[in-house]
Amino acid sequence: MTPQPGSAADVLTLISAGSATTRSDLARLTGLARSTISQRVDALIERGLVEETESGESTGGRPPRQLRLHTEQHAFAGVDLGATHCRVALMDISGGLLAECEDPVVIGEGPEKVLAHVDQRLDRLLGEVGRPRRALRAIGIGVPGPVEFATGRPNNPPIMPGWNDYPVPEYFDGIEVLVDNDVNVMALGEHRNAFPGTNHLLFVKVGTGIGCGIVADGKLHRGAQGSAGDIGHIRVSGHDDAGCRCGNSACLEAVAGGAAIARRLTELGLPAESGADVVALVQGGDTQALRLVREAGRLIGEVLAGLVNFFNPEVIVIGGALSRVHEHLLAGIRETIYRRSLPLATHQLSITPSRTGINAAALGAGLLAIEHYLSPDNINRIVNA
Amino acid sequence: MTPQPGSAADVLTLISAGSATTRSDLARLTGLARSTISQRVDALIERGLVEETESGESTGGRPPRQLRLHTEQHAFAGVDLGATHCRVALMDISGGLLAECEDPVVIGEGPEKVLAHVDQRLDRLLGEVGRPRRALRAIGIGVPGPVEFATGRPNNPPIMPGWNDYPVPEYFDGIEVLVDNDVNVMALGEHRNAFPGTNHLLFVKVGTGIGCGIVADGKLHRGAQGSAGDIGHIRVSGHDDAGCRCGNSACLEAVAGGAAIARRLTELGLPAESGADVVALVQGGDTQALRLVREAGRLIGEVLAGLVNFFNPEVIVIGGALSRVHEHLLAGIRETIYRRSLPLATHQLSITPSRTGINAAALGAGLLAIEHYLSPDNINRIVNA
Repeated sequence: MTPQPGSAADVLTLISAGSATTRSDLARLTGLARSTISQRVDALIERGLVEETESGESTGGRPPRQLRLHTEQHAFAGVDLGATHCRVALMDISGGLLAECEDPVVIGEGPEKVLAHVDQRLDRLLGEVGRPRRALRAIGIGVPGPVEFATGRPNNPPIMPGWNDYPVPEYFDGIEVLVDNDVNVMALGEHRNAFPGTNHLLFVKVGTGIGCGIVADGKLHRGAQGSAGDIGHIRVSGHDDAGCRCGNSACLEAVAGGAAIARRLTELGLPAESGADVVALVQGGDTQALRLVREAGRLIGEVLAGLVNFFNPEVIVIGGALSRVHEHLLAGIRETIYRRSLPLATHQLSITPSRTGINAAALGAGLLAIEHYLSPDNINRIVNA
Repeated sequence: MTPQPGSAADVLTLISAGSATTRSDLARLTGLARSTISQRVDALIERGLVEETESGESTGGRPPRQLRLHTEQHAFAGVDLGATHCRVALMDISGGLLAECEDPVVIGEGPEKVLAHVDQRLDRLLGEVGRPRRALRAIGIGVPGPVEFATGRPNNPPIMPGWNDYPVPEYFDGIEVLVDNDVNVMALGEHRNAFPGTNHLLFVKVGTGIGCGIVADGKLHRGAQGSAGDIGHIRVSGHDDAGCRCGNSACLEAVAGGAAIARRLTELGLPAESGADVVALVQGGDTQALRLVREAGRLIGEVLAGLVNFFNPEVIVIGGALSRVHEHLLAGIRETIYRRSLPLATHQLSITPSRTGINAAALGAGLLAIEHYLSPDNINRIVNA
């Protein structure tokens, strides 16, 4: 690709960062010819990306017209689909939350039913904030399973019957749709909201299963097939008798995930079915549940200790259902990482519970949509269309 | 930072890619004002980065002057320092090899002696190709130990006595010097030469110890403290009795590194001291040595299987002294990765011996220097100085 210095995207970046508020600013900052500036700005205005107002300060003579992002013409949506919930956040182009809602929705009812619900909620939220449907420029969706990111199709998701290979973006005709694994959008939401200055961050979700979202050099690392971060099936030592649904044994998820802990508790005579049940038992002061959560923390810490040596992150964030008892989980995780990782990699490492909380996935999905929309390639495509 | 579209670096990129060969091309491709183009091009010529010749084709009238990279005014060096060797490669600005040499040099003799040798070899190679010392713009150096990349100071390197915290760049007054861990520059050299189209690559060096260079999204991933890729101290299962020099036990390096295999062979009555001795025994057909190398491959594969799940690379390259018997090492590595990693992450994964061979580190170090020199920030700094 030939680089295009001084493209419409460059001009938009200067305007949105507040570095340029007039056409004269743009000419000075870019060195572009006045005719080129006019061409770029006019195209951005025509596409509804920028507006030009007469509100500049008068310094004698005609006041210069002011350029700014045309915020009101835009809306973006972040959608967090879980096994049994659907959260929709409506956001403006700068990432601010406009409105949101959450409903119980069973993902196993299949894509048509679930996406119809999303669509209807989008209309309701747009109505609440008084923006027309055409203002909605892009939607980000996080789903609880693997996704082929380039096409937005779920890839053999174990807890999403009916969704395999379903072309999610095609459901929303005429709007850009980005679909990603839930832990990836959680990592993005957590990074942008709580750790924007951090280059390398891991977001570990400990729920029914265990997964990890990776931020490398400020960007999501999805890997070659988009499967990066699937740490639930890394082998832990001393558990060769624990079979996993993947067909192997001693997988981290099979010994330290919420489902595995619930099963162990049931065997011990304490009926539990999910990570939420485990959390309830720990919060109720049950010592068996507490012991198992600490032990799970140590096993998760064993895997993370290796990843700390390999990846050398600045921050590890622990989220997911079990992070509601994070003091017990983190005790085990920290203990093992500090014992097993190299001192150089741990002496400035921060290991912390999620700060963004239940919003992380929806906000992260919305940011995925906004960042895609504002990417130079997309802006130049829109302007040259 | 305010973006600077149309900077001198943008202009240089268009010239070096061959997209622009005249000032008119630059005006057309960038939309920059003619006066800005002149300013940028004149600055690049003045700094010796670009030359302008009269050799354009005549199409009637005065032929347009042609712009191109001023190759002859530049030279770059890549230096590969090993425990007992020093390899120096002289390269042109496009990464082409101009001249090289290798000598036995003991790194334990300390920085002054070793760097004096490097300096003298640089003068000799520059003389061979007829370029003056001032043509040498940047030097990349790979060393067998951890380095604080930002300052170029080795950080407690175990096999480099006298080098701890030594400010290597200051030795070469007036020249930009970049110092990095040897496995990082090997990964860069292998990526740029053999897998330029690959986004995510791991280069695993199996020598006396075991380390890994990481290419993520086409760039070296060094991590928060520059210690990323230190996989030699990740725990492997079933070897809790194997103590490691780091103070822990069951580290990968302590059971599968060249030194560990040599020690095991010695215990079995086959005197061996280094990875090279192990290779000699395997090549001589010794079945004990062969068995231990295969077993080392399986243990390395166990660690890599977890990293494949986590990082989802496209290519894993196996280099280092033991890769000279790669057919035996790779058998064990492949066997374990394909059994333990997720199918989605392995079905397009390539696991291959190094193609760049003994040159990888010196070439990679040279490329590190060239890429730094041509980075937009550095070019704009040079031009605005």
